Amino acid sequence: MSDQITAVDLRVRYAETDQMGVAYHTHYLVWCEVARTDHMRRRGVTYRELEGQGLRLAVVEASIRYRQPARYDDLLSVRCWVREVASRRVVFGYAIDRPADGTLLATAQTALIALDGGHHMSSIPDVVRSRLGAVPDPVRL
Amino acid sequence: MSDQITAVDLRVRYAETDQMGVAYHTHYLVWCEVARTDHMRRRGVTYRELEGQGLRLAVVEASIRYRQPARYDDLLSVRCWVREVASRRVVFGYAIDRPADGTLLATAQTALIALDGGHHMSSIPDVVRSRLGAVPDPVRL
Amino acid sequence: MSDQITAVDLRVRYAETDQMGVAYHTHYLVWCEVARTDHMRRRGVTYRELEGQGLRLAVVEASIRYRQPARYDDLLSVRCWVREVASRRVVFGYAIDRPADGTLLATAQTALIALDGGHHMSSIPDVVRSRLGAVPDPVRL
Amino acid sequence: MSDQITAVDLRVRYAETDQMGVAYHTHYLVWCEVARTDHMRRRGVTYRELEGQGLRLAVVEASIRYRQPARYDDLLSVRCWVREVASRRVVFGYAIDRPADGTLLATAQTALIALDGGHHMSSIPDVVRSRLGAVPDPVRL
Repeated sequence: MSDQITAVDLRVRYAETDQMGVAYHTHYLVWCEVARTDHMRRRGVTYRELEGQGLRLAVVEASIRYRQPARYDDLLSVRCWVREVASRRVVFGYAIDRPADGTLLATAQTALIALDGGHHMSSIPDVVRSRLGAVPDPVRL
Repeated sequence: MSDQITAVDLRVRYAETDQMGVAYHTHYLVWCEVARTDHMRRRGVTYRELEGQGLRLAVVEASIRYRQPARYDDLLSVRCWVREVASRRVVFGYAIDRPADGTLLATAQTALIALDGGHHMSSIPDVVRSRLGAVPDPVRL
Repeated sequence: MSDQITAVDLRVRYAETDQMGVAYHTHYLVWCEVARTDHMRRRGVTYRELEGQGLRLAVVEASIRYRQPARYDDLLSVRCWVREVASRRVVFGYAIDRPADGTLLATAQTALIALDGGHHMSSIPDVVRSRLGAVPDPVRL
Repeated sequence: MSDQITAVDLRVRYAETDQMGVAYHTHYLVWCEVARTDHMRRRGVTYRELEGQGLRLAVVEASIRYRQPARYDDLLSVRCWVREVASRRVVFGYAIDRPADGTLLATAQTALIALDGGHHMSSIPDVVRSRLGAVPDPVRL
């Protein structure tokens, strides 16, 4: 099951801080997307290729809980996994940690739906769906 | 009660689009913040001054539901109001509309807590709290 | 000639600050683009429509000189004008001021080239070129 | 001399694309900063620590030439080196490549000046200056 949860490492950029001296809150969702892209790639689903085939996955819901602030130059680990997958919709979970002190900084989830090239509702192809198997949450969201 | 809901107008920037041809999803939360800053200002609470006095309001939870995409150059109206206010925490609600065709694009909420200059839990001053009165949601979130 | 220089007002967003307590430097170029879009619109060239017709203007060079920092919640005035226009290339100039204290914060220029829908070099249509007449710089860049 | 030019790898994020289907132009300067932070760290100058000691390096000039577009999911290599260093000012050079096809995508330079905690002109400490030795440009900017 370990290959069903992907962890990516990234470092907080100066551009991502705000004048409160911490990372600005919307960037956490960008980091989640970096982890989602990587998770899909490791599961054999390269999002860039999906788009090339006319399929898009659009975010329709996002929710995030900020527990501790990330700071400039912090090295973070962002975990991503699939929470639920249905014919037209897939829900990803995320946990953002700072390994240096073992702190859980944030947890999040996003729901995405499949759209075709004309931005109409579509289905997630079976081959994609089968690779994005849901797993139990490794942390409480 | 109309002064307890603030609407700000803004136009989608090219920088805010992504290659799906629509506004990238995290920018909606930035627009919400623009509306929140303005709402507080109109209620007599200038956030810039609060920070000058050592008080910070940090986002601890955010959730957003995307209904229809915003596109480059769209003129948007972002409404903001207070949903709940307590001694240390305030919850804002948001609705993002495109007036040109009367479409509701997104609804959201964010919860903020008061921190002092050292990033420790603090209280929202009474004078601020009294100005940020909660109102019923004008739309379903 | 006053209609050949467009000034747009905008307020520095919290999202645009960094932990130095000032606006992060790349956002100034985003503000320049907001002014450029507006300048073109006022000159009768709506960039959104140009793209709809298959023409793109892509930034190929940018240079900017930061003189004084912009801060959160500052109200700024961003001026934009055309410096040079040729068959395939147009150069815009920009000046960013803070009217509250009359400070010139930054000056910049960007060069753009015309591309067709397939991202190949193209020409700027005559009707567009005629509306984007060059004027002398109102400030030294 | 090879340790006087740092190359960092990064992947273009979806959040960094725009509706032209390429990376939005201001993000290249963010990537340059990622490389600059890393270059300084490898030269023994951790910018986070400099700030902790009350020194800031603020960007006062930036110029960039875009040669070929970076696209979503492209793996990039960003090189950074010091072009000039003086008592109060340091100029960095950058080259952004896409190793997969050996394309040089952009070249840039930024000039930074030293500021103290109160945002006044300061000097770059000798120990910092000695570590940031200038080298000839590895590519034409």
